[in-house]
Amino acid sequence: MKTLIFYTLLFLTLMACNDKPSSEEKTTVTTQPKNLEKNIIDLSHTYSDKTIYWVTSKEFELDTVYRGQTDKGYYYSANNFCTAEHGGTHIDAPIHFVENGQTVDEIPLEKLIGPAVKIDVYSKAINNPDYLVSIEDFKAWEISQGNTIPDGSIVLIQTGFSKYYSDKIKYLGTDKRGEDAVKLLHFPGLSPEAAEWLVKNRNINAIGIDTPSIDYGQSEYFKSHVTLLEQKIPAFENLTNLDKLPLSGFEIIALPMKIEGGTGAPLRIVAIVTDEKK
Amino acid sequence: MKTLIFYTLLFLTLMACNDKPSSEEKTTVTTQPKNLEKNIIDLSHTYSDKTIYWVTSKEFELDTVYRGQTDKGYYYSANNFCTAEHGGTHIDAPIHFVENGQTVDEIPLEKLIGPAVKIDVYSKAINNPDYLVSIEDFKAWEISQGNTIPDGSIVLIQTGFSKYYSDKIKYLGTDKRGEDAVKLLHFPGLSPEAAEWLVKNRNINAIGIDTPSIDYGQSEYFKSHVTLLEQKIPAFENLTNLDKLPLSGFEIIALPMKIEGGTGAPLRIVAIVTDEKK
Repeated sequence: MKTLIFYTLLFLTLMACNDKPSSEEKTTVTTQPKNLEKNIIDLSHTYSDKTIYWVTSKEFELDTVYRGQTDKGYYYSANNFCTAEHGGTHIDAPIHFVENGQTVDEIPLEKLIGPAVKIDVYSKAINNPDYLVSIEDFKAWEISQGNTIPDGSIVLIQTGFSKYYSDKIKYLGTDKRGEDAVKLLHFPGLSPEAAEWLVKNRNINAIGIDTPSIDYGQSEYFKSHVTLLEQKIPAFENLTNLDKLPLSGFEIIALPMKIEGGTGAPLRIVAIVTDEKK
Repeated sequence: MKTLIFYTLLFLTLMACNDKPSSEEKTTVTTQPKNLEKNIIDLSHTYSDKTIYWVTSKEFELDTVYRGQTDKGYYYSANNFCTAEHGGTHIDAPIHFVENGQTVDEIPLEKLIGPAVKIDVYSKAINNPDYLVSIEDFKAWEISQGNTIPDGSIVLIQTGFSKYYSDKIKYLGTDKRGEDAVKLLHFPGLSPEAAEWLVKNRNINAIGIDTPSIDYGQSEYFKSHVTLLEQKIPAFENLTNLDKLPLSGFEIIALPMKIEGGTGAPLRIVAIVTDEKK
């Protein structure tokens, strides 16, 4: 019951956020919520020795510090870990590709919490590891929704590749590691033209994808990264469970580890989806 | 305007969550929101070489992997880092003190996102580094609010110690490290009696404090940890900015790094506070 009321209102909040007048305008809102139920969906992979990293990056390592009974009579366990900032479900901060750009601790929380949309390119990408998400893919979403991508949206791109996550050859294109493996990377990403179109024609807060990188595996110059990050649009990579999201009308909460000066960080990202209760 | 409507509704959501009937009951809600403004407050310290760790724990280390122009003509920077799970603003999962307890990746998100209350013991604790938060401190909150601590609350304890965070001698009681420094620890915490009272008499989802540990510095047996974690109530430690929160009527979103089998993890925690717009 508590959560029912909670998400009923959260859903209406989301809906209210999808048309976005001037930030200076003032108003009073009256709502008549329906009987709705909430769903918190975790869009994050776990960190373990199976976690996907760039082929040249340090992988996740967990070391047990202590596990067992203590001489004081209580049980205790604790670990240390080491990782690259950019591995598993993580965020790219502007400084990852922009000199003097925002570091991960400087990204405003308002960019990371808010209404979201999903661009579904599954049918085009799932069997094409070199698929480049195009301007037309965004326009197709807008036609289907009868609306341009709302200002302030978090935009998630579903290629379907997260289902390959446990298989490096299918997910990354290779299970080799090191510099020589970079040219073997094959997975879908956002085309540089579509990144340009987004930053010039739409006003989005953040972007995410269910592949290892917002640029596709065969990218040489990482132009989509540069274009987005120059405009302070952070990118979420290695997302999962995007198939559980609708095309619009949901909220994202994306909270990265607050690393001072970080170029990116492990990210816990969840969606709040609200459905009419049956 | 967008965020105004968003948080107007989020505030009502919170309010609706504060009285919590049976989870099976069905209802329809009608609301008449006022003109409100939102505030996202970051309750997380940054991770750096200044981050506070237990005197026996591995501290945070960031290593630059690359920073500068590449031979392809674009700028690039990336780091690796190592840390203990329990340092800086972090979460304790049940398995930290309970054999076979929940690991950090297993904590239900519903426990980490929801309405919260603040117990303010600043005046008693700020000059008493051995202060133990008592049953009476919780009862005083309930009398002042005319309500018991609502079921499903996230409970935050404000001792004021976060203002000492940059000074280890004031925050921890010592700037020494190693096993011999443990007995020099002095900072406020939750008394074992109050932890018992909370788990037996109230139904809270999670607890947090602005000191290094939910047990006070001089604790030998960590009984408050054991009592809370046995009941699957995770603990947030080394919080900050609690002085910016009201005593009730706000929401917490606490998202830990999703470490498979983790006994705890770095935590990004924010509060959503909504005030009437002036």
